Amino acid sequence: MRWEGIFKGTDARLQIKRNLYLRRMPGNSFGTYFRITTFGESHGPAIGVVIDGCPPGISLTEALIDEALARRRPGQSRITTQRKEPDTCEFLSGVMEGKSTGTPLAILIRNSDQRSKDYDHLADTYRPSHADFTYQEKYGIRDHRGGGRSSARETAARVAAGAVAMAVLKTEGIHVQAYVSAVGDIVLDASYQDLDLSRTDENIIRCPDQETAERMISLVNAVRKEGDTIGGVITCVASGVPSGLGEPVFDKLHADLGKAMLSINAAKGFEIGSGFHGAGMRGSTHNDIFENRDGKIVTRTNHSGGIQGGISNGMDIYFRTAFKPVATILRPQETVNSAGQKVSVEGKGRHDPCVLPRAVPIVEAMTAMVLADHLLLQRINRK
Amino acid sequence: MRWEGIFKGTDARLQIKRNLYLRRMPGNSFGTYFRITTFGESHGPAIGVVIDGCPPGISLTEALIDEALARRRPGQSRITTQRKEPDTCEFLSGVMEGKSTGTPLAILIRNSDQRSKDYDHLADTYRPSHADFTYQEKYGIRDHRGGGRSSARETAARVAAGAVAMAVLKTEGIHVQAYVSAVGDIVLDASYQDLDLSRTDENIIRCPDQETAERMISLVNAVRKEGDTIGGVITCVASGVPSGLGEPVFDKLHADLGKAMLSINAAKGFEIGSGFHGAGMRGSTHNDIFENRDGKIVTRTNHSGGIQGGISNGMDIYFRTAFKPVATILRPQETVNSAGQKVSVEGKGRHDPCVLPRAVPIVEAMTAMVLADHLLLQRINRK
Amino acid sequence: MRWEGIFKGTDARLQIKRNLYLRRMPGNSFGTYFRITTFGESHGPAIGVVIDGCPPGISLTEALIDEALARRRPGQSRITTQRKEPDTCEFLSGVMEGKSTGTPLAILIRNSDQRSKDYDHLADTYRPSHADFTYQEKYGIRDHRGGGRSSARETAARVAAGAVAMAVLKTEGIHVQAYVSAVGDIVLDASYQDLDLSRTDENIIRCPDQETAERMISLVNAVRKEGDTIGGVITCVASGVPSGLGEPVFDKLHADLGKAMLSINAAKGFEIGSGFHGAGMRGSTHNDIFENRDGKIVTRTNHSGGIQGGISNGMDIYFRTAFKPVATILRPQETVNSAGQKVSVEGKGRHDPCVLPRAVPIVEAMTAMVLADHLLLQRINRK
Amino acid sequence: MRWEGIFKGTDARLQIKRNLYLRRMPGNSFGTYFRITTFGESHGPAIGVVIDGCPPGISLTEALIDEALARRRPGQSRITTQRKEPDTCEFLSGVMEGKSTGTPLAILIRNSDQRSKDYDHLADTYRPSHADFTYQEKYGIRDHRGGGRSSARETAARVAAGAVAMAVLKTEGIHVQAYVSAVGDIVLDASYQDLDLSRTDENIIRCPDQETAERMISLVNAVRKEGDTIGGVITCVASGVPSGLGEPVFDKLHADLGKAMLSINAAKGFEIGSGFHGAGMRGSTHNDIFENRDGKIVTRTNHSGGIQGGISNGMDIYFRTAFKPVATILRPQETVNSAGQKVSVEGKGRHDPCVLPRAVPIVEAMTAMVLADHLLLQRINRK
Repeated sequence: MRWEGIFKGTDARLQIKRNLYLRRMPGNSFGTYFRITTFGESHGPAIGVVIDGCPPGISLTEALIDEALARRRPGQSRITTQRKEPDTCEFLSGVMEGKSTGTPLAILIRNSDQRSKDYDHLADTYRPSHADFTYQEKYGIRDHRGGGRSSARETAARVAAGAVAMAVLKTEGIHVQAYVSAVGDIVLDASYQDLDLSRTDENIIRCPDQETAERMISLVNAVRKEGDTIGGVITCVASGVPSGLGEPVFDKLHADLGKAMLSINAAKGFEIGSGFHGAGMRGSTHNDIFENRDGKIVTRTNHSGGIQGGISNGMDIYFRTAFKPVATILRPQETVNSAGQKVSVEGKGRHDPCVLPRAVPIVEAMTAMVLADHLLLQRINRK
Repeated sequence: MRWEGIFKGTDARLQIKRNLYLRRMPGNSFGTYFRITTFGESHGPAIGVVIDGCPPGISLTEALIDEALARRRPGQSRITTQRKEPDTCEFLSGVMEGKSTGTPLAILIRNSDQRSKDYDHLADTYRPSHADFTYQEKYGIRDHRGGGRSSARETAARVAAGAVAMAVLKTEGIHVQAYVSAVGDIVLDASYQDLDLSRTDENIIRCPDQETAERMISLVNAVRKEGDTIGGVITCVASGVPSGLGEPVFDKLHADLGKAMLSINAAKGFEIGSGFHGAGMRGSTHNDIFENRDGKIVTRTNHSGGIQGGISNGMDIYFRTAFKPVATILRPQETVNSAGQKVSVEGKGRHDPCVLPRAVPIVEAMTAMVLADHLLLQRINRK
Repeated sequence: MRWEGIFKGTDARLQIKRNLYLRRMPGNSFGTYFRITTFGESHGPAIGVVIDGCPPGISLTEALIDEALARRRPGQSRITTQRKEPDTCEFLSGVMEGKSTGTPLAILIRNSDQRSKDYDHLADTYRPSHADFTYQEKYGIRDHRGGGRSSARETAARVAAGAVAMAVLKTEGIHVQAYVSAVGDIVLDASYQDLDLSRTDENIIRCPDQETAERMISLVNAVRKEGDTIGGVITCVASGVPSGLGEPVFDKLHADLGKAMLSINAAKGFEIGSGFHGAGMRGSTHNDIFENRDGKIVTRTNHSGGIQGGISNGMDIYFRTAFKPVATILRPQETVNSAGQKVSVEGKGRHDPCVLPRAVPIVEAMTAMVLADHLLLQRINRK
Repeated sequence: MRWEGIFKGTDARLQIKRNLYLRRMPGNSFGTYFRITTFGESHGPAIGVVIDGCPPGISLTEALIDEALARRRPGQSRITTQRKEPDTCEFLSGVMEGKSTGTPLAILIRNSDQRSKDYDHLADTYRPSHADFTYQEKYGIRDHRGGGRSSARETAARVAAGAVAMAVLKTEGIHVQAYVSAVGDIVLDASYQDLDLSRTDENIIRCPDQETAERMISLVNAVRKEGDTIGGVITCVASGVPSGLGEPVFDKLHADLGKAMLSINAAKGFEIGSGFHGAGMRGSTHNDIFENRDGKIVTRTNHSGGIQGGISNGMDIYFRTAFKPVATILRPQETVNSAGQKVSVEGKGRHDPCVLPRAVPIVEAMTAMVLADHLLLQRINRK
């Protein structure tokens, strides 16, 4: 048995172990037509994803997925966690001679480098703003060795599936690009249209403006040295999206994008187009005037963020997602243990001082999956 | 034929009529365990909703639903549209002697007062920031007589279903309350905890601070006189929610709340707890310290907004939803028609200068349905 | 309150009433892309159905639905129950000027002629082979006034939705036709190909062979006079189905047809093509040899029943559904009451001696919905 | 690339290869609450299954799954195909220290022994009663190297998931047992109650009556020597099922069982309880009289097969599934190729003369999954 010996100690602990997880944990699927199901714990043998409904004929290689995974990987720079997860994937099914076949596409990512010991001192403690307490409340016990399914490691499976969705979108000329637009109080004060998004990956914070990027990196470094963490905002732009995607009632395109973003660990807010700023505006200035530009109907401004009435209008789709600071800080904090006693907790091990740069590929992946899903839905709606 | 004669005119118009709606329009269901399906067009005979999965034994009367509908109803005050929709509902099934039976609960709301003529001049014009253009792109034609399924009238069915969900929540001691916290640049600068939310309905803007409410009402009146519209923000608080609701991966409780809010017409942003503000904070100040308060584990602050790791922690859940200004303004605006020609359009008829007060019950209804859904899901997860 | 006064009597009865239905009763939807949700109790104000996903542009009138309902209606002949349900429907949404619009199509059928008194003597008795006992076990109480959702009346909503599905199929040249092929031990000994199915409705038992029909009718009459009931078999043929419908793994076309048939009240068996008879055959005689008939590839025999590997092959689809005899007989039977005491029960009121003729349109309706669902699914699968 | 070189030959063949699978192939999930998604092609690297919604605390080992797989495995006896698939599984997630954790449970089964050459001569030929033609019609091409997803190999993933479902049922005292009750015209003429089902696996045909088993085995051997195949019937009994499982409208327990059975390769018919035989009976003899047996309400007979009104009544559930003879015979048969030309085809390689003994564990697995699904659903329905 692989995990044997992880739990050791008192009878009380064994008792907890025996009752491990008293509830089912369903809800591991996302999407309807491009439907993914992820599986795997951070400290089990592997994680992975099955995509049901992938269109056939899409060019796909394991190298393409690995490349996407590398952008999410821990240890990729000095401002991310130094944990090593040299993720490489294996296609188990659904791809033949470099093309998707249309059958379920299963991708396997083996785990490695699981230092459970780093977490051992936390077994009975509720770390502030972690899922420890809510897991205990919901499941009767939490998996303190890295979070189990609440671990950010689960997002690697999303990134793998997102790379497939991205390949689907590419065949339709759709391009998705995210970048860090704020870290703490350093806000990139420019529209995405004035930025060269192709330069996003030229720095380790993934901000396309190099000067702002430097300031952000300095801030993250300073925060890291203090054992602290910091939040920020990621902006995402989808261009080339055809008009007509999205359903007019509940499954509005931006509602599905919002759910996708808010399902990412640490996300606390989502706004599309003018967002919260638009709430302060008047209709006469907020309305996007239609124009005929060389035979194509476009809008002069794009406060709508490319979606009107829940349906894409052919303009760029752009939105922002807010991420809170990582909860694990390398400083002592007050808290209580499972017995309700006051204790102090201090993060150990290898943690991200700022989740933003590694969250960029996750934002892109979730965006790509929502768009792929609506693209397929749109096909069935044809009379 | 009920709707006969609505379309009259040129052959081109008849041609459009013949091809009316070239696509299916699925996606009229929301929720999984407390699952609603809404139906009806604003200018058809009726709208309504079927709830599949309502728990039995819930006290319900048509009067209770009508009361909820009255808060959403047009014409309820001088700052809303003067359209009259004296909505009263009829239970078609699922309720017997004042109690839900557990069977599908169907609620019917007949339409009335449909002044299609008010919209006739718009048949070929793309109103700025309306769904006209995207409907035309998606469906080949739009229903210009009030928006069809994109009409805000669809939300009456949501409010009816929400009133049922609210009755379910009441049996578990859960209370949902929303209020207007910003109109344009007038922002209610107070935490929900410092407000007496029971006084929200004492004024027509639905802001619990009477002084701020007066200023908001004045602003809406001024905007209305200019033929303009204005956006704002609604804050919603759910108290009494037990810990443990929400799934840890995709179906995080706040992700489902976010989708629910963003599916409401005119919503452009959503944030929970510290939201976008939290993105600027450090972990050491953002983390919610756990405390033992008389045997109950609570958090000292509540930046998490009552949800950690996607799961409720027993603290109040609160979030904010941004609404853009209503797109229909009673002023001339540039735009193009379906032939791509430059034209001017000017709103006529009876429209809301500010959607906020009528959106309050819709926010509450959607919140109640998400919570009812997760309550039921939680039951099945028990071992 | 509409249903007031139905329950009267002892305190024990009131107690039961108060706990009426202790469980939810979800699962009122059928289909995925052509998705129906039915609602309504036999003794409530109305029943109905919402179709989500109906293709637009389908010619539909209320008269068309009423015509379909008339074939299922009680009281249509001397060999069916003499209960009167003069069902006429009302389109609440989704149809405009005689065409479906693609939006949710809601159909309302008001109830009438509910003689609850006919059932009053049964309140505490478990009628043999009825759902009384299982309802009591599952829900804590049963609706003894006609069965509630287990009532055959629910199938009227299916027939209404089926008429819409049939109209969809008609646009693709698909034709569905069912007929009674056995009543008791009178079995119509002929292949569907040797029958003139257009003559099915020429007699009240709905058997296309008039001579056999006469014998069946005589048998039903004899059985009726004895206060007894009798079962039988319905054969259904779908012609014009294009090749390619059905999914190869779980959602095989005949698996979905099987579930659809078995969901009809009193159905106990389903077989497609050679069915149980084929289980006794050898591969060399059972295999359907492919032939090129004037450029079209067909099979010489059709033991497969038009479906191979779960996917339609362009040949006629045909299958048989077995119906048990109606459980209500007008004779005394032993049973127990809810206290477990031995009692005698005797059917009163107006019941069908043989459900077969009225089940024919239900079989057709369920078949049409499965085919419409797979037609729509097939569209999305296109690359 | 693993599969490289499999396709070789003419340009026409390469052209086909390039267009391989022109359609998506969704629908690889089964169940709602105990939900499985299977993946993998017979000639790819692996097959497997992800179970979403498995209850926690269930005792599970890889050995338990392997034991179940061994009963389905080819080459297990002289009357099954001699293909070798020494299936052993690996838990990728969801199990810790021998217990399910409630998280997604992923099971991997590596492929081996893929003799694609055995199929090479079939590339352009439509084998009679195979899925070749329907795949070509639906997907534009078929995977002739063993059937791809239509391969019976997919059922190994079902058996693995079924073993997990079986372990869930065991904790509730539910026992599922299937056996071969007919092969060709040899029909086991005994009720399941008069058989010792524990002796089913004592012979290679899996018939609990040893004398009948010998005759069945002789028949299969004779058929095999003639290069022919033969069909049969499997009876399945579920005992210990609590009353109350099943939904009264569409998701009747026997309707879901029927779909499950009919989704198994080669299944052509399903009947529960009295089934087709019951269609010839009268109500007065078919009705199951309720009795009070030592305080427990039972039925004297069980024509209902343990399900009344779609809901289990606590009696044994039993049903029969008809399987057609395997389509691949080792004799020349007429057919056409993809160009519509008359050709002869003759099965080569290693095939089953009779699928029945290996289908027994598949029937049990699908039954267990339906029951596990309804058990979980039942929990959420509680008020």
